[in-house]
Amino acid sequence: MRQTEQAKKITKVAASLFAKKGYNGVGVAEIGAASGFGRGTLYHHIESKEGLLHEIASQYISELVESGHRITGEYPDPVSRLRALSRHLMSVISNSLSEIVVCFREVQSLTGSRHHDVMCMHAEYQQIWSKTIEEGVQQNVFREVDKIAVKGLLGMYFYSCLWLKPDGLQSPEDIGDVFSDLVIRSLSSDPSD
Amino acid sequence: MRQTEQAKKITKVAASLFAKKGYNGVGVAEIGAASGFGRGTLYHHIESKEGLLHEIASQYISELVESGHRITGEYPDPVSRLRALSRHLMSVISNSLSEIVVCFREVQSLTGSRHHDVMCMHAEYQQIWSKTIEEGVQQNVFREVDKIAVKGLLGMYFYSCLWLKPDGLQSPEDIGDVFSDLVIRSLSSDPSD
Repeated sequence: MRQTEQAKKITKVAASLFAKKGYNGVGVAEIGAASGFGRGTLYHHIESKEGLLHEIASQYISELVESGHRITGEYPDPVSRLRALSRHLMSVISNSLSEIVVCFREVQSLTGSRHHDVMCMHAEYQQIWSKTIEEGVQQNVFREVDKIAVKGLLGMYFYSCLWLKPDGLQSPEDIGDVFSDLVIRSLSSDPSD
Repeated sequence: MRQTEQAKKITKVAASLFAKKGYNGVGVAEIGAASGFGRGTLYHHIESKEGLLHEIASQYISELVESGHRITGEYPDPVSRLRALSRHLMSVISNSLSEIVVCFREVQSLTGSRHHDVMCMHAEYQQIWSKTIEEGVQQNVFREVDKIAVKGLLGMYFYSCLWLKPDGLQSPEDIGDVFSDLVIRSLSSDPSD
């Protein structure tokens, strides 16, 4: 197994254990035993348990930010962009259920720059959605909405980590389409206004 | 202090401690010390730490279910009912931030009938919203939406427990109005269809 694969496995195993037993209920030794690596290999990849929590909380949100910027470039039309962002977000949530649950529950266990870093990435991701809505307003396809609206709309997606079943009947992309349909209609400028 | 007030205080103090330190990080003795009651008074009101967690997770959702049925009776019109449900939900979330955060994080620590009971109340509350949407569809004010939509729309509200500031510039009722406006538009049947 290559070093990056080892690191990924450790993070995945730790996320699953933290999601089941809570961050405070799991020790580094248990993570080592569950991932099948000895203490040496483990500490080669992780700095500390908090470093591991930071890694878990960072992976999915950094992926969302990176792909969010890519999608922004690929879809100049705000409506098509929201559809693409929506499908992508549901697919990342579905692939990172343990990580997102752990981040929601334990983000306050991160200290200093680690906490700041994760919160900044969430703000940057929200900004990608806000900017898309603003562009839609400028193009008269969306109406002006209160700034708090984007927090609500993103909550619709992120909250799904509590009920989404990765092996459910609807694919995450299908759910993403149902949600983007709601979002786009909720924002649409009413031609009769 | 009357017995019911003592019980309420114990639940409130426990919710705040569980929210800060996690359910597993807080003992019954600490709850007693923080609420200013001795062991005797404490165990007069609580059966066990899990009983206390059940009480915390039940209070806000049973209030939502009870008031949800009342609001259904008071507002036969589905659009006005959604506005009333929306304001009420945001106001309960704002008053129960610690309780909701604890329920989200720790509901899986509840066992047997306690867990079942809390999940059933959440399903009953969701049903109040679903029924309102269905009535709107029957009256041609709402369009048919995928069943998963109601989970998304309620997630918009519940997720706010992670960002809502009780002393923020916008009142919970104002945020409820922004959200119900989004919800109603997202569901509205398009007259041009």
